[in-house]
Amino acid sequence: MNQQNSILKRIKKDEILEMETRFRANFINSISGFKSVGLIGTISTTNKTNLAIFSQVFHLGANPALMGFIVRPDVSPRHTLENILETKFFTFNHITEEFYKQAHQTSARYEREISEFEATGLTPHFETDFIAPYVKESHFRIGLKLEEKHDLSINNTILLIASVQEVILNEEIIKKDGYIDIEKAGTITSSSLDSYHVTKRLERLAYAKP
Amino acid sequence: MNQQNSILKRIKKDEILEMETRFRANFINSISGFKSVGLIGTISTTNKTNLAIFSQVFHLGANPALMGFIVRPDVSPRHTLENILETKFFTFNHITEEFYKQAHQTSARYEREISEFEATGLTPHFETDFIAPYVKESHFRIGLKLEEKHDLSINNTILLIASVQEVILNEEIIKKDGYIDIEKAGTITSSSLDSYHVTKRLERLAYAKP
Repeated sequence: MNQQNSILKRIKKDEILEMETRFRANFINSISGFKSVGLIGTISTTNKTNLAIFSQVFHLGANPALMGFIVRPDVSPRHTLENILETKFFTFNHITEEFYKQAHQTSARYEREISEFEATGLTPHFETDFIAPYVKESHFRIGLKLEEKHDLSINNTILLIASVQEVILNEEIIKKDGYIDIEKAGTITSSSLDSYHVTKRLERLAYAKP
Repeated sequence: MNQQNSILKRIKKDEILEMETRFRANFINSISGFKSVGLIGTISTTNKTNLAIFSQVFHLGANPALMGFIVRPDVSPRHTLENILETKFFTFNHITEEFYKQAHQTSARYEREISEFEATGLTPHFETDFIAPYVKESHFRIGLKLEEKHDLSINNTILLIASVQEVILNEEIIKKDGYIDIEKAGTITSSSLDSYHVTKRLERLAYAKP
């Protein structure tokens, strides 16, 4: 869409506050841009697996290798949170075009005794020396260990900081300089709460110098 | 790429630790998936504008409307951090195919007295009642106010939590239910440290129920 001549509208804080709750959720979830989205796999101390889609996910640092996750304790991934706090280990599995519908379906509010793996038809895959379940359909998987939990009192969310224990992927997509071609792996992205998108690379740019 | 029959490799923590620093930075920056990327515009107390590309950005909550940003104080966006701490207000501007090269160029380590606006040819745009500069070339702009600063001692990064003061966009891309079609706005995404991607929507899915 050519927006060069489009008229832009300023929507101010007061107007956002007056939006209907669901409208505001869709609206504000859209503004941060395209999201890192994946499936978090966990297991309970009673060996019940759990799978939940997360899109409040970010790179925190490379040395040590750390990722951040925002969890809302009041919504469905609460089983995920409980499992992570109890067992410390979890997995993050990239989503592809082949199973994004099943991935989205994990966001339904299933009862605790129901595993989202069974409910959605996705397949748990276990490594012999890692307690949390991976998603077999995902060909880009990360094993993580909880390092820190920060309660963000401003809106009662929780920041989980986790260290990367292992990365499971097709070696062919790792470039000589360490860059991983996640587009070639089929990794998709999401926007707002329910939209899924494939990507097309414009370009890799050189390290910027003044 | 059809990965159904591909052999996956497990790259464990020890191997990641042994990677050469730059290789590891590219590698670990790739694994979190596609990123929310945008330009943060700030101004100093001496009226010097600053512009920096950020991709450690996430949706924190819709009610109140909050976004999170991770800042590394040891690298070039430190002027951004100083300005935000001093003036409290900043802007987040989506990036499109038309100016992603200029956006990337803001990551070069310019001296404090040089504005990245001038250095990259991007145009500052001011609203009369908002102190921080927007990017005129961006047609999706967010005005933000710093609410909280959390020092993450685990890797000496900083989490900034900011409240949404206003959203400036083409009204036509707002759907009836509040979803904003950022793909139609031309918003791009990034992977790792230097790769930029346009998107193509697969589908918006319905709210998931068990």
